[in-house]
Amino acid sequence: MALMGQMMSMPLMISSLIQHAARHSGETEIVSKRVEGDLHRYTWKDAELRSRKLAQAFARLGCRAGDRIATLAWNGYRHLEIYYGSSGSQLVCHTINPRLFPEQITWIANDAQDSVLCFDLNFLPLIEKLAPLLPTIKHYVLMCGRSHMPAQSSIPNLLCYEELVEAEDGNYAWPVFDENTASCICYTSGTTGNPKGAVYSHRSTILHAYASAMPDAMDCSAKDVILPVVPMFHVNAWGIPYSSAIVGAKLVFPGPHLDGKSLYELFEGEKVTFSAGVPTVWLGLINYVKGNGLKFSTFKRTVIGGSACPPAMLATLMDDFGIEVIHAWGMTELSPLGTLSKLTSKQLALPQEQQRRILEKQGKVIYGIDMAVIDDEGAPQPWDGASSGNLVVRGHWVIDQYFGGRVSPLVDVQGAGSWFPTGDVATIDADGFMQITDRSKDVIKSGGEWISSIDLENIAMAHPAVHEAAAIASRHPKWDERPLLVVVRKPDAELTREEMLAFYEGRIAKWQIPDDVVFVAEIPHTATGKIQKLKLREQFKDHRLPGA
Amino acid sequence: MALMGQMMSMPLMISSLIQHAARHSGETEIVSKRVEGDLHRYTWKDAELRSRKLAQAFARLGCRAGDRIATLAWNGYRHLEIYYGSSGSQLVCHTINPRLFPEQITWIANDAQDSVLCFDLNFLPLIEKLAPLLPTIKHYVLMCGRSHMPAQSSIPNLLCYEELVEAEDGNYAWPVFDENTASCICYTSGTTGNPKGAVYSHRSTILHAYASAMPDAMDCSAKDVILPVVPMFHVNAWGIPYSSAIVGAKLVFPGPHLDGKSLYELFEGEKVTFSAGVPTVWLGLINYVKGNGLKFSTFKRTVIGGSACPPAMLATLMDDFGIEVIHAWGMTELSPLGTLSKLTSKQLALPQEQQRRILEKQGKVIYGIDMAVIDDEGAPQPWDGASSGNLVVRGHWVIDQYFGGRVSPLVDVQGAGSWFPTGDVATIDADGFMQITDRSKDVIKSGGEWISSIDLENIAMAHPAVHEAAAIASRHPKWDERPLLVVVRKPDAELTREEMLAFYEGRIAKWQIPDDVVFVAEIPHTATGKIQKLKLREQFKDHRLPGA
Repeated sequence: MALMGQMMSMPLMISSLIQHAARHSGETEIVSKRVEGDLHRYTWKDAELRSRKLAQAFARLGCRAGDRIATLAWNGYRHLEIYYGSSGSQLVCHTINPRLFPEQITWIANDAQDSVLCFDLNFLPLIEKLAPLLPTIKHYVLMCGRSHMPAQSSIPNLLCYEELVEAEDGNYAWPVFDENTASCICYTSGTTGNPKGAVYSHRSTILHAYASAMPDAMDCSAKDVILPVVPMFHVNAWGIPYSSAIVGAKLVFPGPHLDGKSLYELFEGEKVTFSAGVPTVWLGLINYVKGNGLKFSTFKRTVIGGSACPPAMLATLMDDFGIEVIHAWGMTELSPLGTLSKLTSKQLALPQEQQRRILEKQGKVIYGIDMAVIDDEGAPQPWDGASSGNLVVRGHWVIDQYFGGRVSPLVDVQGAGSWFPTGDVATIDADGFMQITDRSKDVIKSGGEWISSIDLENIAMAHPAVHEAAAIASRHPKWDERPLLVVVRKPDAELTREEMLAFYEGRIAKWQIPDDVVFVAEIPHTATGKIQKLKLREQFKDHRLPGA
Repeated sequence: MALMGQMMSMPLMISSLIQHAARHSGETEIVSKRVEGDLHRYTWKDAELRSRKLAQAFARLGCRAGDRIATLAWNGYRHLEIYYGSSGSQLVCHTINPRLFPEQITWIANDAQDSVLCFDLNFLPLIEKLAPLLPTIKHYVLMCGRSHMPAQSSIPNLLCYEELVEAEDGNYAWPVFDENTASCICYTSGTTGNPKGAVYSHRSTILHAYASAMPDAMDCSAKDVILPVVPMFHVNAWGIPYSSAIVGAKLVFPGPHLDGKSLYELFEGEKVTFSAGVPTVWLGLINYVKGNGLKFSTFKRTVIGGSACPPAMLATLMDDFGIEVIHAWGMTELSPLGTLSKLTSKQLALPQEQQRRILEKQGKVIYGIDMAVIDDEGAPQPWDGASSGNLVVRGHWVIDQYFGGRVSPLVDVQGAGSWFPTGDVATIDADGFMQITDRSKDVIKSGGEWISSIDLENIAMAHPAVHEAAAIASRHPKWDERPLLVVVRKPDAELTREEMLAFYEGRIAKWQIPDDVVFVAEIPHTATGKIQKLKLREQFKDHRLPGA
């Protein structure tokens, strides 16, 4: 008979994160640039007390275990309190992306059957419009103080966040319950079909927080001042509200002020050391800093994910600003972190040029996640840095099914059980470094060989006259599919089809060079900024390739 | 009704650590200085395969779930394989400290009812002597290859480790079972009474590994080359065999070769970046390096724990060698890590002298452990850096009871449930930094006030003529107890009672200065190098203080 361990039995609870931060880093600051425009400061101790008061307020509103508390809010201290006040009291925090189209927001709130909706001041007009379409929501909470409440609103019984919190005494002990209880729901962006909800648990969130704070991941410590540019409505800001509590770091929230000037002033004013965000957000910041001849005095490293970091951006941040760029890959179904690119002792001995090539990959998995690349029959592909296949993962913070019992389409890996198919196509090298080569639905299948649309786009983007480019599959009678390149030229730039195609010579195998180029005024994007290739393929479905 | 999370359900398994290292850092080296004298090299991939073969061998020997596999071994790759091969196959790894007295080793092996004993070559004479006293052990395994097996031994059917491993094919899948299953037993050193076994679980070990690898703890990464000087028979080498797998670091094992020269050559030859050990082991290394005018070229940081790191040693390592010293505190009942001393962003702005005082403290808890200081009635004391009390802890890797159902004496903290009493007396400051001031049984209670024996010893040790000093309580008719200082002079040094007492003037409050000094040739130590104060108090129980 197995012998059992004899250790204290305590569930992994999200409330213990903020309790830890309050007890052991109680005086450490949380600074928020508010929607109202001013700078708000308080401490982890204050945040924990107010989160407890908020938990009391939710209970007073009649919320019961399992109820969903929706948010439509920027990064700020009140949003943080909702994270902890809801999950900590056995409610479920449901962050909604305000950049989605109104009909998507409505669809998501109804699918999740949200009970309460908390939202920032600037979303009031939007919510007034949507409220009649949201039958499950019993309480609307405007995230501001009494003085900012509207004189009147079409929303009946609109509640004031600060009044709710201030009415409570904080005499509340965080409950202890099953660690597999739901803590949050995050919806996928739904590039194909309706968005689907990923339901995280307390356990998966804590394990993700441990793993993501480790040195080869985000490397978070009490020495850090962390500014998450990645929004709290986007996969929980990659877990930073949790990982910063685990280490007791100072937190800085930018609110809706994400332009280069606002960010730069906040980075400098609060001595930010670490940040995280998608590639596009850094463009504005880099341009502002370069354009004004400024430099960063404390900013040391950043995680870049969401989509692949262009090599040119990686070079600018590292070479011009001395900022360590940690390239990462993840997805909503992974809470979100899967891999990060940090050099190993062996790789640090390589010439810098080779190191840079490695850093451009999406990196190694953190312990808790396992990955493989498989072919369409589920056979694992070799880890040689060249053989590409469908990327599949499994682990403690990977979903098993979607909200509402929608089963996720797990796939069998030969000899290794069920894994989650990421929809990405990737290679893995002998050191375990993964590189995304494409989305599986975007890869161009030419005569049985796969051509990476991302590779084609990266080459096009390196041409000085190209503003944006997308490579899509176009039907071909002999090869099934051949690449078609869709290009938006830079304003006033000149570029012909022939010049574009010639640019590929020597940069990629001849048979992978696109068969044709079309120039357009605009490429369609999703609400989260991704290229809508499905729409593009639809648009060019009758395009006839030369020689086809 | 609560909503449950919808994440993949996977238990936290120790086997997943070495699988992770083999898959994702397969070519990273593990280098061992063997008992045989040579240097052995292989990789995490090799270690995982051989651990699987060893699991097969244990099964072939008839071991069943829950059986205890004892080791008497130095730090080396075979010991690592036993860690994973036993725990990974639902057996329990029981490391025994070979520095204990033979009767203690016998007592512990019988208490744990070990089934198998694996031991290094140089312990053969000892085990031949003890074997008749160990009725539960069915198999003795000598950790060497065939060529090192003795021609004959008094141990019947003495098995050869390499033969056992090589006989298997490695065609073995790590089993998956309840994460609360026992993984290891470690015994306390037993300074008072018989040693007691702490029974770790797979879950507690994995959570400890996550926490201990974090930036504010041991800060382990794939960039590191880690040499654990702390023995694998001493609380699992502070978890380094697990935390190095979690990050895929290169591991270097020193075997029994712990003298300054051997260690230095290994540090340099293998480019060690990080190490960990008790204060005494660094003395030999420091003396060798200084005495030969050498320096370290890659060694960057070390964790020092087990007992308080003398400020002078901390200064030498940091100032003379540029090595970051991470002062730590833990105990067997804590797996073992509780606190580590790393500066926060706020503290990094302080003058260096103040930073140094902070680093001399034992530091902050890592997330997963909670601590408090309480008085004898269980009332929490303020976190002001001055109020001392009994240090109590609770957390995911703290024992609930000892092996064999021996209940640990949990204590009630007013309003906060049951906590484990560490037996240490400590202060905690407003930033959450804990400092051990004494063992609770060693503190000197003078007229209701507590005097720290450690403070008195640290002052004495700063006198150039003092080799070692111990402060103990001596009975006093008026004050109940008063301090008596027991001193061993340095060879050829001269020091009188009056000179010693005068040395305290201005260094500590007058009422805390010892009442008397006695000089002895030697101070008694335990097998693990701790001063036996119980024995000292017994020795001086009839000592009459002047004025008493």
